[in-house]
Amino acid sequence: MGRFLLGELAARLGVELVGDGALSIDGVADLAEARPGQIAPATDPARLEEACTTAASALIVSRPLEHARAAQLVCADPRRALGLLLELFAEPPGLDDQERGVDPRAAVHAAAGVAPTAWVGPFTYVGPGAQVGEGSRVEPFTYVGRGARVGRRCTLGPGATLAAGCTLADDATLAPGAVVGGDGFGFWRDGAGWHRVPSAAAVSVGAGSTVGANSCVDRGTLCDTRVGRGVQIDNLVQVGHNVRVEDGALLCAQVGLAGGAIVEADAVLAGQVGVADHRRVGRGARVGAQSGIVQEVPPGAEVSGTPALPHGRWLRSSVLFSRLADLARQVRALGREVSRLAARDGAAQEDNRR
Amino acid sequence: MGRFLLGELAARLGVELVGDGALSIDGVADLAEARPGQIAPATDPARLEEACTTAASALIVSRPLEHARAAQLVCADPRRALGLLLELFAEPPGLDDQERGVDPRAAVHAAAGVAPTAWVGPFTYVGPGAQVGEGSRVEPFTYVGRGARVGRRCTLGPGATLAAGCTLADDATLAPGAVVGGDGFGFWRDGAGWHRVPSAAAVSVGAGSTVGANSCVDRGTLCDTRVGRGVQIDNLVQVGHNVRVEDGALLCAQVGLAGGAIVEADAVLAGQVGVADHRRVGRGARVGAQSGIVQEVPPGAEVSGTPALPHGRWLRSSVLFSRLADLARQVRALGREVSRLAARDGAAQEDNRR
Amino acid sequence: MGRFLLGELAARLGVELVGDGALSIDGVADLAEARPGQIAPATDPARLEEACTTAASALIVSRPLEHARAAQLVCADPRRALGLLLELFAEPPGLDDQERGVDPRAAVHAAAGVAPTAWVGPFTYVGPGAQVGEGSRVEPFTYVGRGARVGRRCTLGPGATLAAGCTLADDATLAPGAVVGGDGFGFWRDGAGWHRVPSAAAVSVGAGSTVGANSCVDRGTLCDTRVGRGVQIDNLVQVGHNVRVEDGALLCAQVGLAGGAIVEADAVLAGQVGVADHRRVGRGARVGAQSGIVQEVPPGAEVSGTPALPHGRWLRSSVLFSRLADLARQVRALGREVSRLAARDGAAQEDNRR
Repeated sequence: MGRFLLGELAARLGVELVGDGALSIDGVADLAEARPGQIAPATDPARLEEACTTAASALIVSRPLEHARAAQLVCADPRRALGLLLELFAEPPGLDDQERGVDPRAAVHAAAGVAPTAWVGPFTYVGPGAQVGEGSRVEPFTYVGRGARVGRRCTLGPGATLAAGCTLADDATLAPGAVVGGDGFGFWRDGAGWHRVPSAAAVSVGAGSTVGANSCVDRGTLCDTRVGRGVQIDNLVQVGHNVRVEDGALLCAQVGLAGGAIVEADAVLAGQVGVADHRRVGRGARVGAQSGIVQEVPPGAEVSGTPALPHGRWLRSSVLFSRLADLARQVRALGREVSRLAARDGAAQEDNRR
Repeated sequence: MGRFLLGELAARLGVELVGDGALSIDGVADLAEARPGQIAPATDPARLEEACTTAASALIVSRPLEHARAAQLVCADPRRALGLLLELFAEPPGLDDQERGVDPRAAVHAAAGVAPTAWVGPFTYVGPGAQVGEGSRVEPFTYVGRGARVGRRCTLGPGATLAAGCTLADDATLAPGAVVGGDGFGFWRDGAGWHRVPSAAAVSVGAGSTVGANSCVDRGTLCDTRVGRGVQIDNLVQVGHNVRVEDGALLCAQVGLAGGAIVEADAVLAGQVGVADHRRVGRGARVGAQSGIVQEVPPGAEVSGTPALPHGRWLRSSVLFSRLADLARQVRALGREVSRLAARDGAAQEDNRR
Repeated sequence: MGRFLLGELAARLGVELVGDGALSIDGVADLAEARPGQIAPATDPARLEEACTTAASALIVSRPLEHARAAQLVCADPRRALGLLLELFAEPPGLDDQERGVDPRAAVHAAAGVAPTAWVGPFTYVGPGAQVGEGSRVEPFTYVGRGARVGRRCTLGPGATLAAGCTLADDATLAPGAVVGGDGFGFWRDGAGWHRVPSAAAVSVGAGSTVGANSCVDRGTLCDTRVGRGVQIDNLVQVGHNVRVEDGALLCAQVGLAGGAIVEADAVLAGQVGVADHRRVGRGARVGAQSGIVQEVPPGAEVSGTPALPHGRWLRSSVLFSRLADLARQVRALGREVSRLAARDGAAQEDNRR
């Protein structure tokens, strides 16, 4: 665990310092638990009082707090500051010596290749022709199928599956229980029932990407299902066969992409979103939680709802949905009033005729 | 398997008996499969005829059935009666002798502690500093990370992961494939792409709680993600980083809680509900299936829909949604009628002027 | 890899051939990657130009393409043609010799039965009384519980769980991480909190059925949870306790069926659909993505939405939902006009009185 002067931290982060730069800082903690020498994020308006009374020596704030006793780092992006400080103060990876090389309890095929600096833990399976690159970690209960390739500095968490022929580029991560390379879910049907279309291709996951815990990426039919570079996939996400998720896209938990869907670069899909087969979410688009995408989403658009609408329109419609009973009541009242006027109008006409 | 007099069972359950208390009962079965000597639940109105003709010696009913031949236990809470009887007649746990101690095929670190009455099965991993308490079961393919702690009488199902530093209190259960302690899904961004905010804290699961099959609970950033006591989490549920699920809450299958969400004590979330980040579901609130919570849910409230509304209001709006075409038609018809009246009114005005 | 004359393939598939039947074909590939000697599907209207310029020797089309140079197989069901051709050209299963019998690193109980032609891989658990049938594959990290039965030619993917007493009929598949036989999620409650109703029964999966990656099927209370024959279950699906999924039903990814739900034969549920407890989806019904079923769905019906409506009605209501602001505006305008007319009418009445 390191120790830094507060002024030094402000300079590293490139943020404004309010207070004594000579304070010595050795960690990050929550406001309520911090002790002197630690720095705490204080960006939650609901915790203003705690921010003013915390024992922390310094605060991460988005604008200066007037009544805080602690010094303050004023950050345009407090989340960035927190992230960088946590990395700085994190304990070094601290691998045991035993976490190098191939554990004698691993089942590594004779025709597989494991780089010398990789760790292949106990109770792992590495199939014929599979490759594990330098510095990668293959944790217990992980399956690396026949001919699969793991790049450098990858992590395959406990119970992850990288099926036959699938590839992870450098610095990619499979979280615990992730399944990359299951069979695609496409069928044709005759009198005998469903027949599955075989998945002749595999899955490729790009550099620096993560597939979250218990998430699934199915293999492609003729071309690989592709997850680009720097893609962040949360837990329990389903990525169907032949899907393409481009660089820098972010899929929150429980998102489902049906077969052949395309998520373009830097698009962000919030939790539980569904995308229908072969639909495209444009570059940098943002899709609200639980939305259902059944039509193309233009680049940069913000959409919500099922079927998805431009976000503002969905919001207005949702407010009116919540008041539909009022609207219906108004229409009924109008109907009565119009009937009354029409009756009077008819009576007047009668009068005129007479 | 035990054998009890029916009168004795009625007394144990504290329920009313209709019929012969001297009947001997040795099991519970479904109406259609029960044989004499067994007791069967008969609370489904659609199965009334079966209830009258079953071979079961006794029935669990919520009110007395007139034409049943079998004796009847009249229960205010038939589900409770069923649950207690099933426990009574269940076979004793029947652990093999081999299911004690540490299996020689387990990978238990020298610096881990396993209580003598615990079972650590074959092909398990228990890391340095990890602890497994008295009477706990660590099933095959289960991962107990560095410094993780398993209380007494816990069960970790096949393929469960309890990551480094996470804790299970006494009598807690991880169902098969549950992942407790994956990294949180929080990021900051710059020109190089997404940067993950490290998860410096862990997960604590309280006494008597269950995390369902293939469900995920992510670790916290600075403070542990907390699952309280007696919390019931179904399968395929996502619990994000920094979430707090309080005592006695119940989360049905495929619920997703985004980072920092709070579910207060005894709240019940039906299947596929999503809760946005930092939102709070109040004590004892009930959230309908597939709802999306984007605002605070008050204690005791019943809400449904996305965005969630008070349940009754959502129901009324949903009925009107299903009839929106009618409403639009009425508005069009009113529009025509009002135009006609306005035209006549205009004409009358003309007449008057002349 | 086989090699066939194109005319022979057309005859096998029973489809019309446009072009030279004497062409020799040795594989299937994507339009963009195909080389001479391969056949490529060309059914995507957006890829018409590629279809005309591909190096593939032959195309799978649904109607003849005018400007294509390649020969064409004109197929009423191109997906069927693709599926059959992929099977034809797929490499033979190619099991290693080592993938026969029981791996010495497997934990197979002395009182379990494994057929001689089955493969039980390294780091597997087969409990007392469990049976594994002829030609079945039990992949690494798979758990076959006490008394569970695996039929012939089944596949249990890496990390799958078949819990105690559950059965797989012939030709069934558990994809990686599937959990069959977790405890049901039913409770009764008293002052002490939730009490789980024990699951005294198990799960039976019928012949030729598949349970997808990381999907869960819970065991029954008194009768087995039943998955019929030829049922296709995608990834991350939840099938609750006491559910019945009948023959030939198809459940897409992230579907959730609550306890006691019934999905009748050949029904198709699209992604992320939820079915409430004890609800029934009729034979051959089709349920749109993300729908919520809270009432009976009649046989053959097509429904969408939450709560689900007939599909056409849901579509109309959804279009009107997207324009609710317009409708509300019209109602407000009508209100103003009606007030004006009423005021004039009142004034006229005044005039008349004078």
